[in-house]
Amino acid sequence: MSTLTKTVLIMAGGHGERFWPSSRLAMPKQFLALTDDSRTMIQLTVDRIRPFTEIENVYVATSSAYRELLQQQIPDLPAENILCEPVGRNTAPCIALGAVHIRKKYGDALMTVLPSDHLVQYPNIFRDVLQEACDLAESDDSIMTIGITPDEPETGYGYIKFIPRRAKRNAYAVERFVEKPDLETARRYVSSREYLWNSGMFTWKVSVILKNLEKYLPRMTEGLRSIENSIGTPDYERVLRDTFPRFPSISIDYAVMEKAKNIYTLAANFGWDDVGSWLAVSRIRQTDERGNVHAGNVIAIDTRDTIIQAGGKLIAAVGVEDLVVVDTEDALLICNKDRAGEIKRVLQVLKERNMTSYL
Amino acid sequence: MSTLTKTVLIMAGGHGERFWPSSRLAMPKQFLALTDDSRTMIQLTVDRIRPFTEIENVYVATSSAYRELLQQQIPDLPAENILCEPVGRNTAPCIALGAVHIRKKYGDALMTVLPSDHLVQYPNIFRDVLQEACDLAESDDSIMTIGITPDEPETGYGYIKFIPRRAKRNAYAVERFVEKPDLETARRYVSSREYLWNSGMFTWKVSVILKNLEKYLPRMTEGLRSIENSIGTPDYERVLRDTFPRFPSISIDYAVMEKAKNIYTLAANFGWDDVGSWLAVSRIRQTDERGNVHAGNVIAIDTRDTIIQAGGKLIAAVGVEDLVVVDTEDALLICNKDRAGEIKRVLQVLKERNMTSYL
Repeated sequence: MSTLTKTVLIMAGGHGERFWPSSRLAMPKQFLALTDDSRTMIQLTVDRIRPFTEIENVYVATSSAYRELLQQQIPDLPAENILCEPVGRNTAPCIALGAVHIRKKYGDALMTVLPSDHLVQYPNIFRDVLQEACDLAESDDSIMTIGITPDEPETGYGYIKFIPRRAKRNAYAVERFVEKPDLETARRYVSSREYLWNSGMFTWKVSVILKNLEKYLPRMTEGLRSIENSIGTPDYERVLRDTFPRFPSISIDYAVMEKAKNIYTLAANFGWDDVGSWLAVSRIRQTDERGNVHAGNVIAIDTRDTIIQAGGKLIAAVGVEDLVVVDTEDALLICNKDRAGEIKRVLQVLKERNMTSYL
Repeated sequence: MSTLTKTVLIMAGGHGERFWPSSRLAMPKQFLALTDDSRTMIQLTVDRIRPFTEIENVYVATSSAYRELLQQQIPDLPAENILCEPVGRNTAPCIALGAVHIRKKYGDALMTVLPSDHLVQYPNIFRDVLQEACDLAESDDSIMTIGITPDEPETGYGYIKFIPRRAKRNAYAVERFVEKPDLETARRYVSSREYLWNSGMFTWKVSVILKNLEKYLPRMTEGLRSIENSIGTPDYERVLRDTFPRFPSISIDYAVMEKAKNIYTLAANFGWDDVGSWLAVSRIRQTDERGNVHAGNVIAIDTRDTIIQAGGKLIAAVGVEDLVVVDTEDALLICNKDRAGEIKRVLQVLKERNMTSYL
C-alpha cells in the first residue's frame, strides 16, 4: 500500500486536429464526446480515476484558452489544480510544471501522468494496473510505464522494448523506447513478442522525475525553481509567462525515457485506444450490421463501413462505403477512411488562406 | 416559310426527384440553375425560343403550385399562357390541354412541344431544326419529332427507329418508337445506325395532334371539348378541375407515337442533354483538371471526378472520388456517382417516415 499521496497529472493541451471539423481550436478533442457515452473524453478520464484518488490530487495541464471549458466539464476540480501553460511546449515541460506544483504542495508524492483523450474500456483493470505502478514506483526510484500488448502492427504508436522476464512483481525492465515504426518494422516488433505499445502513461515519484529532468534537461532547472517559488504568490502568472516559453519544446519520451535507467513497464490490456483519428470511432462505438456508425439524422441506402455524424441537417448516403462524414455548423468533412491521417492538410490550406474561423 | 402561327408548349410539371436535395416539391429541377449559367433551366428554355417566336405564343403547362415561381422567373409570360394542371396526368393529357388552348386562340397553328429542363448547347442549330420541323409539319399532316444522333448506348432514353433514306427534305420516316432499352439492346441500336434518341420534342399542327388524340384516346374527347368551351369564361377553373383528373395518366409516346402513321424525324445534334441526373452536371459544367465540378466553398485534397455543391458551409473533401455531394439548408446528399439513379430510394424512405419537409 502506498503511503505517499497518489497524484495524477492529466495532459489536456492538445488541439485534436485529426478530429476536425468537430475538434476546433476553441473546442478540441478532449472536450468532445466521441464514444457511445455522452460524457466527454476528459470527463471519462477523470471519472475513471475518481476511485483511484481524490479529485484534490488531480491536476490538469492545459492552455488558458481551455480553463473555462475545463471548469464547466469538471466543476469540482480545484481551480488551483488547473495548470495553464502560456504556450504549448510538448510533454517534458508540461510534466515538469506539474511536478513542481505537486512537490510544492506535497513535498514528495506519487505522480501518474495520463493523456486526457484516450479510451479505457476496462476501468477496474486500469486502476489495478495504476495501483501496481504506484506500489512499484514508491518502493525505489523506478520510472514506471504502462505498455499495451499489441493486437496489430499499428504504425501510429511508439513502442517499448522490454526484457521478457519478470523483473519486479508484474513489471518488466525496459530495454528501450522506440518511435513510431513503419509497417514492416511494426510487424517485426509485434511478431517478436518483445515490444509493447507505449500508452503515454507513466508513474513515478515526483522526486524521481524531477531528478531525471534536472539530469537530462538541466537548462530547465533554474526556471522550474523560480516557478515553484512563485506558486501561491501574486507573482506566479508573471513568472510562468516569463519562464515557460523559454523551455525547449521536447517530449518526455525523447528527453527522459530514451535516456533514463531504471525504467519498468507493466504489460497491460484494459481495452485501451488512443482514439487517434476518426477511424477510432468504428472501433470504439457500436457499429450496425453493415459496419456503419451513424449519429443524428441519417438515411443510408446500400452504405457500408462509414462513419457519418450528422449535425443539424439530414444526411442521405447512397451507395457509398469507407467514408468519414462529419457535419458541423459551419464545416463538413468528407474523407476516405484510408486518408483520415490527411485531415491536417485541410487545416494547412485553411491556415494558408487565413480562414481561421474554421480552425 | 410558315403562315400558321408558331406556338410552343413547354412542359414544366415535373418534380425533378433525381436532383434531390436541390430539387424539392416546392422548387423542382426546371426552376434551378444547373449549368454554368446563372439562369434556370426553364429560363434557358424560354430564352432559347425567343428568337423563334413571340412570348405571347409560348404556353407553359405546370402545376398550380409553380404558378408564382414561373411568373417570377419568366415575368413577361402572359398569365393566360400558364396552364395549371389540377393533377399530374403524364404528357398526353398535358399536350391535349395545351392543344385546346391553342386551338381556342388561333384556330389552327403550329405547335412545338418542349421539355422545360433539357439543355441545348447550340441554340442556333436548335432553332433551325425547329423551323424545319414547322415547315414540314405545315406542309401536310405529319407528326414531326426531333431525334438526336446518339454518341453512346444510353439506357436512360427512349429511341426512334427511322428508315435511313431521306423522306422529305431533311426528315426521315419513323418506323417505330421504342422504350428505354437495356444496355445490350442500346448497344445494338447504336451500332445499327438506325436509331436516334427520342428527345421528347415534337412539332405538329394543332389540328393534327387533336385528330390523333381523338382517334387514339377517344375517351378524352368530350372532356377536352368542355375545357375548350370554358376557356376565357368564369367556369374554366371548375371545368378543368372536374374534367382533367379523369383523363388517363398516359404518355404521348405510348398514346400516340407508338400508333400514329405519318411520323417523321429530323436527325439533329445541337448539344442536347436531358440533364437527367446529377451525373449530367459533370457533362454540362466545366470540370477541373481532376474531373471535379465544385461549386461554393470547397477545399479538395486528392479528390477526383466528384461533383460537390456547397451550400452555406465549407466542405472539405479528402481522398475521395466518384461522389456527388450536394449540401442544402436542411439536407445533405452523399451519393456514389454510379448510384445517382437511386436517389429516389431516399425519397421513398422520407415518404415512409413522413418526413415531408425534406421532399
